[in-house]
Amino acid sequence: MMNVSERLTRHARIIKDVDLRALFARDPKRGERLWLAFDNWRVDYSRHAVTDETLELLNQYAQTLDLNHWISALFSGERLNFTENRAALHTALRQPNDTPIMVDDKNIVEEIHAVKTTMRKFSEAIRIGLWKGATGKPFKTIVHIGTGGSYLGTRLICDALFQKGNMDVRFVANLDHHALDRALTGVDPESTLLVIASKTFTTEDILVNAKEACNRLAAAVRDVARVHSHHVIAVTANIKAAQDFGIPDKHILPIWPFIGGRFSLWSAVSISLALQSGYPVFEELLSGAHAMDEHVFNTPIEQNIAVQLALLDWWNSTFLARRERVLVPYAHTLGFLPEHVQQLMMESNGKRIDWYGKKLSANAPSTRPIFGGVGTTSQHTFFQWLHQGMHNAMLELIVPIAVNGHAQRIEMPAHALAQAESLMNGSDHLFAATYEPSSEETLRAARVCVGNTPSTVFLLPNLNAYHLGALLALYEHRTFIESILYRVNPFDQFGVELGKNLAPILKSAMMGQIKLDEEDTDSATLTAVDFVKKYWKG
Amino acid sequence: MMNVSERLTRHARIIKDVDLRALFARDPKRGERLWLAFDNWRVDYSRHAVTDETLELLNQYAQTLDLNHWISALFSGERLNFTENRAALHTALRQPNDTPIMVDDKNIVEEIHAVKTTMRKFSEAIRIGLWKGATGKPFKTIVHIGTGGSYLGTRLICDALFQKGNMDVRFVANLDHHALDRALTGVDPESTLLVIASKTFTTEDILVNAKEACNRLAAAVRDVARVHSHHVIAVTANIKAAQDFGIPDKHILPIWPFIGGRFSLWSAVSISLALQSGYPVFEELLSGAHAMDEHVFNTPIEQNIAVQLALLDWWNSTFLARRERVLVPYAHTLGFLPEHVQQLMMESNGKRIDWYGKKLSANAPSTRPIFGGVGTTSQHTFFQWLHQGMHNAMLELIVPIAVNGHAQRIEMPAHALAQAESLMNGSDHLFAATYEPSSEETLRAARVCVGNTPSTVFLLPNLNAYHLGALLALYEHRTFIESILYRVNPFDQFGVELGKNLAPILKSAMMGQIKLDEEDTDSATLTAVDFVKKYWKG
Repeated sequence: MMNVSERLTRHARIIKDVDLRALFARDPKRGERLWLAFDNWRVDYSRHAVTDETLELLNQYAQTLDLNHWISALFSGERLNFTENRAALHTALRQPNDTPIMVDDKNIVEEIHAVKTTMRKFSEAIRIGLWKGATGKPFKTIVHIGTGGSYLGTRLICDALFQKGNMDVRFVANLDHHALDRALTGVDPESTLLVIASKTFTTEDILVNAKEACNRLAAAVRDVARVHSHHVIAVTANIKAAQDFGIPDKHILPIWPFIGGRFSLWSAVSISLALQSGYPVFEELLSGAHAMDEHVFNTPIEQNIAVQLALLDWWNSTFLARRERVLVPYAHTLGFLPEHVQQLMMESNGKRIDWYGKKLSANAPSTRPIFGGVGTTSQHTFFQWLHQGMHNAMLELIVPIAVNGHAQRIEMPAHALAQAESLMNGSDHLFAATYEPSSEETLRAARVCVGNTPSTVFLLPNLNAYHLGALLALYEHRTFIESILYRVNPFDQFGVELGKNLAPILKSAMMGQIKLDEEDTDSATLTAVDFVKKYWKG
Repeated sequence: MMNVSERLTRHARIIKDVDLRALFARDPKRGERLWLAFDNWRVDYSRHAVTDETLELLNQYAQTLDLNHWISALFSGERLNFTENRAALHTALRQPNDTPIMVDDKNIVEEIHAVKTTMRKFSEAIRIGLWKGATGKPFKTIVHIGTGGSYLGTRLICDALFQKGNMDVRFVANLDHHALDRALTGVDPESTLLVIASKTFTTEDILVNAKEACNRLAAAVRDVARVHSHHVIAVTANIKAAQDFGIPDKHILPIWPFIGGRFSLWSAVSISLALQSGYPVFEELLSGAHAMDEHVFNTPIEQNIAVQLALLDWWNSTFLARRERVLVPYAHTLGFLPEHVQQLMMESNGKRIDWYGKKLSANAPSTRPIFGGVGTTSQHTFFQWLHQGMHNAMLELIVPIAVNGHAQRIEMPAHALAQAESLMNGSDHLFAATYEPSSEETLRAARVCVGNTPSTVFLLPNLNAYHLGALLALYEHRTFIESILYRVNPFDQFGVELGKNLAPILKSAMMGQIKLDEEDTDSATLTAVDFVKKYWKG
C-alpha cells in the first residue's frame, strides 16, 4: 500500500508530460470550476497542470501534515521560530478584539492596542498641524528612514494607497548617500518630519542615514537637539538605543521581538501610511488582513485559499520541476509588490536546513526565485522570454478591476487575460509574413510561441486598503504553509548576518586602519581592497 | 581525437564538483590573476569555477566560432536580424567620425549626425528658455512618454546621471492611468514639455497616455493644437503617424528600423537626457559606448571583455547548470540597471529556435532568468536565499568607488566585497549563540552558510556618463556574443506580439461589443471576461 507521498510521485510522472491544452480539451469547463474564492475575489488556477485526482491527492497529503495544528500554533503565539526561541505574532497586530495573547506572561494585545492609539493620535496631530516643527511650521513632508522589513512593506502600502492631496512621504533605504540626497531634494527642512524605523536601532544602513538627515535638518532649525525633540518619530524594539540617539521617550513607538522584519508593515513602522493617508486607512488595511486571518484559521483546507495556493506552489516546484515564479500585478500602484513578495518568500523559505538540522537534498522542494514587475510595462521586458524562451516558469497575475474605488482602464485586465491565455495556448503562426523570407520554414519557426506555461490569475473587483491588506496577509500565510511543506523555519534569517559582519572589517582595511593578509581572507578580496584604497578619496 | 566541445564536456565533469574554496587553496594567488581590464576597470572573475585549462578550452572553442567575422558583420551593418531582414546598427549611433555606413544605398552616419545636431539645438533652446510653451513660459518639467525600449534605457541613464539643479524629467510607461496621473502631479502644464517616444507610433500603451497628456495640457494652454505645436517632441521611425497625431514636422526626431527598441537609448529617444543634463552629457555617454565598441572590435578574444564574460556565462549555464543570474549594482543611482539588463538579455536571447529553425533541446544553453536590485537595499530582500537557500545562482556585483565624480560612502564597496567574499567562503558558525538552544546541533546547522556561490565583481573607479556608456555597451556586446554561442537571433522579439494582438479582442468582449464562445477561446478566459464585465464601470 503506497502512502500519499508515493502516490503523488507516481501521479506526477503521468501529469508531467500532459500539456495544459490537453487538460482543457479533455475537460473544457475546467475554467469554470477550478478557482478559489475570498470575499468577492476569483482566483483562477485552472491553467495549472492539475486534475481532480491531483487535487484529491494534494488535499490528502495536506491532511497528513496536521495543518490546523500549525495554524493554531501560529495564531496562539507558540514559539515556532524555534532557532531564536520566539513566537511569530504578526497576526496579533491585526486582531481587532481584546482577546488576550500572552507572551512571557504579558498580554501583548493590550500593548498593541495602546500603540495603535498613539499612532492615531500622532497622525491626527501632525495631519491637522497641531504637532509642528521646531520653528513653528506644520509638517508637509515625511522622510521615512528604514531598510528591509522596516522599509519595503510600508513603502508598498504607501504607494498602493496614495491619493491626490495626501501628505508627501519619501523613503530612504539605501546606504548610498544618493538615496538621502534625492529624498531631501526640494523639501523644506522646517516642515519635514523623520520617521526612523529600525527594529534593532543598530542597522548601519539606517543609522548612517538617520544621523545625516538630522544634521541636514539641524542647519535649518538651529541645532540637532531641536531636530531630535521636534522632528523625529522612532519605531524600534530597542527603546534604549533610540533614547541614546536623542529621541524623547514620548516619540518612540515600540515594536516587539515577536514581529519579524518582513512582517512589520502591520506595526508602528507603518505610522508613515497613517501620516500619508490618515489613520483610518491603516485600520482598513488591518481589517482586510484580519479577514484573511479568519479565513485561513476557519476554512477547511479544500477551500482554504492560502493552503490551496501553497499546495499548488509545492506541487509545481517539487513534482513538476517548475522553477521561476514570476509575479506581475497589472496595477502601476503595486510597483513594490514583486519585491515585497520576493523578500517575504525568499527570506522566509530560502533555507537549506530542515527542522531537524538536516540538509535538504538537491531535489528537495524549495523556494524558487521569485521576480516580476508591473503590467503592462513588463510585457516589454521579460515577457519575450516567457513566450519563446527556454524556461520552466509559472506566472501569477494580480488583476484589479478598480483601484481605490476608481475603475482601471479596461485595457489593463484585457492585457492581463490576453497574456494568461496566450502563454498557455501559444501559437503556430503569429501573423502573416511581411518581409522577404530567406527560408520560409525557418522564419515560420522563429515566430512560434510554444505555450503550455501555467498561470494563476487573481481577479480583484476593487483593490483598496481592505483588499490590499487581505492580499498581503494571504502571501504571508501561503509562505508559512509552504514552510511546513518544506519543513523549514520561515522566521529566522541567519544568512543575512555573515556579510553584514564582514563589511566593517573590510571598511577599516580600505581606510588603512587595519591590514589584512592571506590568513584573514582570499586573494580576490585582498586585491579588491587594495584597488578601492587606491581610488578612494574620502 | 575529441573536438573542443567534447573536451569541454569532459573537463566540466571534473570541475562541476570542485569547490571554489578548493580552487583558491590550490592556487592562492588566483585573485591577482583572473581579472579583465577596460580603461581603469578591474573585473574580477576569480570566484568562478574555472581553471587555466577551462579558460584555454573556452578560448579554443571561441576560435572555432569565428567571432571576429560576426563582430565585423554587426558593425558593418550586415542583416544579422535575418528573420526581419534587417541590420542591427546601434553601434553606428555612437560612431564619432564620418566613415560612411550604407543601408539601402543611404549613408546612415550622415543622417545620425544630422539628428544629433538637432538634439543639441533642441536641448539648448529649451534649457536656456528660448523655446517656450504656448503661453510664453519656459519649460521646467519634461514628461517622457514611452515604454519598453523607448523608456527603460533612457530612464536608467537619466536616473544614473541626474545632478542637483538638473531639469526635472518624469517618465510614463504603464498603460495604467495612475502612471500618467502621478507623473503630472504638481507640474505646471504651461511649463511642461512632452517627449513622445515610440518606434512604431502605434503602441497602445504610449498613444493612450500621449493623447491623455495632450488633453490635460490643453486645459491650461487653450487647445490641443497649441499643445501639439509648442509642447511636444516626437521620436519615431513612423514619421507619418506622428504627423497624423498633430505634431509639426520640425519637432519630429527620426529613429530607424535598424535600431531595435532595447538598443534605442543611444538614439533621439534620449533627447530627455540631453534636456535633463545638457547635450554634452549625452555625447560623453556615446563616447564611452564607442570606446567599448572599439575595445570589442579590436581586442583579441583572450583580453576581450565582452567575449570573456559571454564565455563565462555560457560555461556556467551550459556546463555547470548554473541557473539564476543575479545582478546587484552597489549604487542607488543604478536602480534601473537590473531591469534594463533583464530586458536586454531576456528579450534578445529568450528564444527556443536556433538559426536553422530547429528547437533547442531542453539541455541546450539558454538565457537564464536575470533579476536583481541595488545594494545595499537588496541585502535585506533576496540575499538570505543566496546565503542559505537552495539555488544554483551566480552573482554579478557592480561596484563604483565614485559616482559622477563624487566619492561613494566607503561602506558601499565594503558591503559589496563582504558579500562576494562570504557568498564564496560561507561559514561554519556565524556568531556565538545568544539564546537558549533546544538542540544545539540543530541550531548550529541552521546558522551555516554553505558558500561556494560564484560571483563577478566590477570595480569601477568612477561611474560617470563615459563609464556608464561603456558599461551599457558591454552588456549589449556580451548579449550579442552569447547569441552566437546559443545560435539564436538576438534582434527579433516575435513573442511579444501574441498577447498584444489578443488584448483588443478581449477588451471588446469585456465592453460587450463582441461575444466570445468556446470556439474562440478557453473556459478560463471566458469566465474571466464575464467577471470583468460584471464589475467594470467604465
